[in-house]
Order: sequence, then C-alpha cells, then structure tokens
Amino acid sequence: MNTKKYISELSEFLAIPTISAQKKHVLDMKKGCVWLETKLKSLGFEVDILPTKGHMVVYAENLKAGSEKPTILVYGHYDVQSPDPISEWTSDPFKPEIRNGNIYGRGTSDDKGQLYTWIAGLDELTKDGNAKTRKPFPINIKFLIEGEEEIGSKNLNDFIHENQSLLTADIAVISDTHCLSETVPLICYGLRGLCYMQINVKCLGKDAHSGLYGGNVYNPANVLAQIITKLKDENHKIRIPGFYDNVRVLTKDERDKLSLFPFKEREVCLETGAEIVVGEKEYSVIERAGARPTLDVNGIWGGYQEEGPKTIIPAEVNAKISMRLVPNQSSEEIAQKFTDYVRTITPQGISVEIEELSGGEPILMDTGSKYFKAAEDAYKKVFGRVPLYELSGGSIPVTAIFKRLLNIDSVLMGYGLPDDGLHSPNEKLSLNMFERGIRTNLEFLKNLK
Amino acid sequence: MNTKKYISELSEFLAIPTISAQKKHVLDMKKGCVWLETKLKSLGFEVDILPTKGHMVVYAENLKAGSEKPTILVYGHYDVQSPDPISEWTSDPFKPEIRNGNIYGRGTSDDKGQLYTWIAGLDELTKDGNAKTRKPFPINIKFLIEGEEEIGSKNLNDFIHENQSLLTADIAVISDTHCLSETVPLICYGLRGLCYMQINVKCLGKDAHSGLYGGNVYNPANVLAQIITKLKDENHKIRIPGFYDNVRVLTKDERDKLSLFPFKEREVCLETGAEIVVGEKEYSVIERAGARPTLDVNGIWGGYQEEGPKTIIPAEVNAKISMRLVPNQSSEEIAQKFTDYVRTITPQGISVEIEELSGGEPILMDTGSKYFKAAEDAYKKVFGRVPLYELSGGSIPVTAIFKRLLNIDSVLMGYGLPDDGLHSPNEKLSLNMFERGIRTNLEFLKNLK
Repeated sequence: MNTKKYISELSEFLAIPTISAQKKHVLDMKKGCVWLETKLKSLGFEVDILPTKGHMVVYAENLKAGSEKPTILVYGHYDVQSPDPISEWTSDPFKPEIRNGNIYGRGTSDDKGQLYTWIAGLDELTKDGNAKTRKPFPINIKFLIEGEEEIGSKNLNDFIHENQSLLTADIAVISDTHCLSETVPLICYGLRGLCYMQINVKCLGKDAHSGLYGGNVYNPANVLAQIITKLKDENHKIRIPGFYDNVRVLTKDERDKLSLFPFKEREVCLETGAEIVVGEKEYSVIERAGARPTLDVNGIWGGYQEEGPKTIIPAEVNAKISMRLVPNQSSEEIAQKFTDYVRTITPQGISVEIEELSGGEPILMDTGSKYFKAAEDAYKKVFGRVPLYELSGGSIPVTAIFKRLLNIDSVLMGYGLPDDGLHSPNEKLSLNMFERGIRTNLEFLKNLK
Repeated sequence: MNTKKYISELSEFLAIPTISAQKKHVLDMKKGCVWLETKLKSLGFEVDILPTKGHMVVYAENLKAGSEKPTILVYGHYDVQSPDPISEWTSDPFKPEIRNGNIYGRGTSDDKGQLYTWIAGLDELTKDGNAKTRKPFPINIKFLIEGEEEIGSKNLNDFIHENQSLLTADIAVISDTHCLSETVPLICYGLRGLCYMQINVKCLGKDAHSGLYGGNVYNPANVLAQIITKLKDENHKIRIPGFYDNVRVLTKDERDKLSLFPFKEREVCLETGAEIVVGEKEYSVIERAGARPTLDVNGIWGGYQEEGPKTIIPAEVNAKISMRLVPNQSSEEIAQKFTDYVRTITPQGISVEIEELSGGEPILMDTGSKYFKAAEDAYKKVFGRVPLYELSGGSIPVTAIFKRLLNIDSVLMGYGLPDDGLHSPNEKLSLNMFERGIRTNLEFLKNLK
C-alpha cells in the first residue's frame, strides 16, 4: 500500500482551512469542495457540487456496477472546527505534521482523515490504472460530503429530503467515530434519541417579598422541584405514565455481547469525576448508557443567584429537562406523555409552560444484515479480531435522518482513537489507524462484491 | 399646632441630601447630624455626634425627669436612599414641595419626616418657652439616630453593643413604618426572624455529556429538587424534624384581634399577581403571614440556562433557601436543624455544602405593657379608633438588636401610608399623617407622665 502517497494527498486536503463557522473561510470551503471533486473524478466518479442554504454539499456517484449490485452511500464532512486557541498547537493546525506515529492537524480525525480512508480504499481497490484504465467498482458507490457538520448540519435534513431519489442506497457507511484502541475495533449499532423539553413555572406577577408573602403563595422553585422529583423515583425509574411502553427488551445474546464492552463503573467515575455510579439496578453500566432511556435536568434557574442573601419569592423558575430515548420510543410520543404528565402533577393555580426544544429518534441497526457481516469480516481480517458491539448513549443525527428519509441503516466504521483530541488543540490521527482504516474499507468493499 | 413652622423646619432637614450610599455626600451626612444637633439642643437635649466605622450617629438625652420616671429611646435614621432616577421626579427630591395635601421629597416618609414628628411632638409638649424656659420633660428621653439604615445598618449592632449603658431605656419607639390608611392606625407587635441558607450540590468534576453518562451518574439538579421537595410536604408543613418545636401557639384572643386585619386572599392576589392563595389550612392569611414560620427557595441555578438545548448533566447546582421564623424559634437552632436534615436526606456519594448566609431573631413585643397601652390610647384620641394589631412577616433588624442588647421592646408608631413610594421617585408624606403623627406622639408622651 502506498501510504506515503495517501499521507501526501490527505495533507493537501488538511491544508485547506475549511472552518464552516467562520465567514472569512467561505472561499476555503469552496476549495475543499473542489479538492474533493478533483480527487473523486480521478477515481471515476461523476461529481456535483450542490448548493444548500448554507455551505455546499459534494455529491459523487459511480453506479456502473449495475442495478443488481448493492449501492453504498458514504457520508462524511469536509468542514472542520476552528483551531482556537492556536497558541496551544505544537505545529500549525493547517500544516499537517507527522510526529510519534500520528499525523497532527485540524480535521485529521474529525473528519477529513477518516473520510479520506474511503478515497484511499477505493484507490487501492481499483489500482493498476488511471482514471480511464482503473478496474471497475464491484458495487455502486455514492458520496455525500457535507460542509456543515461542525455547525449542526442545519441544512442537511432539507438537502436529503429534496434529493431523496438521488441518494437512494442500500446502506450508509460513515467513518466519523472511533475504535476503542489500536487493537480493539468497534461497531456502534444503535444510538439513543432525544426529547428535550423546557418547563417554565410562573406563580407570581413579579418577584415578591418572602417576608410579606411567604406562607401564602406558591413558590415556583418549590413547585418545580416537586415536579422534577415526581419525574423519577428513587430507583431511577422514570414515572411518566407509559414512558417505558415501547422500550425494546434486550435479548440474552445481546446482553452477553454488550457485557464485553469495557465501560464499567471505573470508567464512568474516572471520566466524570462522580464518586459513585448509580442507575437502574437490573441493568449494567453499558446497558444503562445505551439501551435504557434516561431523564436529566440539563439546567435550572430562577430568582436570586448572586452573592449573599436576597429575600424574594421568584415570580418564575425554569428548567431544561431532556430524555434520551431508545428503540422503539419516539420523541413525539414521549414529548406528549411528558407534557400530559407534567400538567397532571402541576398544582392548580399555577401557570406552567411546556416547550419542546429539540427531538431526535433513537435508532437500532440490523446487525444481521450482509453489510454488518461484511464490516465484521473486514475488521477481523485487518485487526485480527471481531469488533465489539456498542449501543451508544449519544446521538449522531445524520444516521437518524438516513433512517427516516432514505430508510437505510448506517454502518459506523470509525478509525479515530478516544484520545484524538477532536475539537481541541493538537488533533491527530494515528497513522496505524489510518492504514488500518484504508485496508478495512478495502476489505469491506471486497466483501460486498 | 404650628404646622407651618414644623413643615418649614422639616423642609430644611429634607433639603440636605444625606445619601448614605454615596461617598460624595459625606459632608451632607455631617450637615444632617449638625442640623439634628442644633434642633435637639434647642429643645433642651444634650447632644453628641458619635463616630462608628461608617457614618456618624446622633445621640441625644434629656434625663432631667429623674430615675423614678421611665426612659424612652427614640430611634430614627437621618440617611436617605438615592433619588435615582431623578428624571421621574415631578419636583426636585431635595427641594421639598407641597402638592395635593402631601409633602414630596426624598426622606419625607423614610425617615426624616417621621423622625421629625418626635421633635415636633416634644416641641408641642414643652412649648410656651425657649430652650431655657421650656416646660421640663415629664419623662426621660434619649434619641438614637443613625446614618446607615439605607445601607443595612452595618455598624449599628457594634455601636449599640459598645454603648449599652448609654442607651439603657425602658422602651424604644420607632416611627419608620406606616398606618393602613389615614383613618386606620396600626401597631406592629411582632416581627419574624430569618434563617437564610445556601445549598451547593456537586455530583461531578465537570459538566458531563448527558448522552454518554445519563443513566449512570447522579444529576445534581435532580438531587437538589428531591432535597427541596423533602423540605415541605403538600400541606405546606415544613418537614425538618423539630422545626415547629418552639413555635409559639396563638391565643384565642390574639387570633380574634388578628382577624380584624384586612390582609386576606384578595390582598395577597392583588399585590403579588398570584392566581390563588395557598398555605397551612388551619391558619388564616394574616396568621400565615406573621405568626407561622415559612420556607421558600429564593433562588436556584445550575447547568445550561441560555436559549435552546444543550445536552449536559451539570456538575453542580445551587439553591438559596430561607426560612422566616417566629417566636420562640432561633436562627441558630433552625440553621442546625436544617443542616442536619439536609445531610440526612442527601444520598451517599454526593458532595453537599450547606452555608448560613444570614440570620435574625423573631421578636414579639409585650402588648400588655404600659407603653403599648399609652400608644393605643394616643391613637384612639387622635385617630378616633383603636389601632389594629399586626404581626409582620418581615423583619426590622434594629428591633431585634434592641431586644438582644438592651432587652427592650419597640413600639412601632409609623405614620407613613402604603403608597408613600419609599425608595421610589416622588416619595411623599401625607400632611394629615404628619400632623396626626405629631399629635399622637404628644399624647403618647403625655400618657407616660
């Protein structure tokens, strides 16, 4: 494998400061698209740079394998986070440098370096030729590469919605996550959804003197505390009626597989600074993190918050409360149940506003499909071991969009490492992982022949 | 009664901008003291302007009535609030003006005008003479007039502590409150105390991702909500063990008297904007406001408080919680019981800091004393009706200091009206109330002969 060439090509791509958040980089964003266009064309793709309401999307396709062959949709993003604070970087974030077996630079791991493993993988697959004499692709391949992932992918949903037929595929593959270590690959096969609410409790027209009115009026902070307390019991069960109705039950086999995952009490305490781990007793730490729904207050505020005492009863107190959802809950269903329940437990004579701030659906991939089998086999061949299966507690919104609009699963084949420093100074990608990524993708593509 | 002369004298006093909060008025503060000194000397007092760590105190005494006669200590303050925003004043705050039967200016009601009713009352009592030929006072009189009431009386406690023997008296009288209306006088005979705490609940080393760690760690906002909920039950009873142990039980007679006080559900709703009034069922609104202890959250904050969603578990959440106390609770006792209980109900594995931010003792005056009788008779003569008796929900700290350090009650003979606009633009004092105040004080002094 011509690693040197691939590092050199990736370095060109990394050198373009495609910072989506900053207007002054608009031209760099275009350069990033053109770099991808040139590169993908040289591999035999038809490429379009398509507009959105924000930054452009690079779309590429090579469907020459024919309709009886599967079509994969490779998703990635060409935009990067701002490198601030620049003074903390050992080398220039946009002049990639190799040190200690890693390549350093903004976007190495998130996501240019990982996205590039597909380009290099395809190069490997079809080499011994140039754009005209390359071997043909054994399957149909589409690329969807967006430029707004680091600013919330705010136009991606509309873009996919408007281009549903263009993007039709059998499976999506995404390299934008990480392995557990250089020797332990990982396949994330499920992600939690989200139902994010805000409650505004108002009891008074304005802040009132706690001496004059205390004892005669509702205090919205006390009322909100009661509401929050009634949302969860002391065994960490959520008390919203019907909340668990649609929660998928784990199979014995799945629980066994999940138990191999090294995310235990020790990791939680080390990573968060918590003294102890608490949660539903009948589930393990990894199950609670990925396979069980949760409810957390994300923020709460009201009344006097400065130094010293001030004797008021606040007029209004607010809280942001979110629930992580698992299959087969839906954010709409849970938002409704939450709202109904909060209304039920709010005492009369109090004004309560309940808003839904954000929602996203949980997803579970069909790990029995030939695509997951192909990925598992590829990992086995390159890493020498089968990947661990993970249910992630977080969300990767694009996977939910693909599921909803294109009705396809996503195989998350990430080649980062947990210490890559995404969004931080000195972001890096291990060169070992870079090579293994290219080879794993190559094997995956071969397996789908 | 020479009202014209009294208004003219008061106007001189009001014209001195004795704003204690502003350094540029230091000289005016001294002028205020000197004005009082001159005035009190002309009535036959020995006067001292005494230093504190802050603004000076004017002390005056005339003890010529002899040790077998009672001694009253008149408390007042010569400092005023800043008049800002000046643009909202109809006339200059320091050029008193008479309109619609009121005198307008900063300090008219709070407290120069009310304090001056004692000076004018004494003038009336001893008139038909000058400083040398005035009639002698029938009782011993001391004045304690501070210059820091509007900035928290922060040096008053020390001053009284250091001058305990100088300030010895049988009763304090204070005109710094209000009547219910021009025809309904009021005697406040009890004030609630305060125990003001802060709770800081910390569960994590830093804010954590609610997707990755939700379901496995304590959320300090949820924990704090549980703690707050356990402080009070749904019948508005405080659940801190022993909290009510020392609460004084009202007599039937007292309850009957309190029931005359026009502070009902309607007033509470109108004044606060509350939709409904809630509280301990077996007590009336006025009893709950003055004779029963309360617990209120005064402020709560932690985690994400800006627009939109942010999926964190906050590391720390804080609340300010205060309790209004009634005789014979003490702030020390209640702070300890609160602290012990919160520690008991805090789950293991969580760090909870509990601080006491402020405390003050409840007081109850002996309304059976001859001083209250003298006040009641004076009101009856001047207003044509007996005063209403009130237990106030708030606190007037100086009364608690007098009780603690001098072991005397205070008769609160206020002549303001609820709409005087204390601390606001266009502060005023009704001239009717001004005259009635002077006459009531005169009668009170006569009654003590």
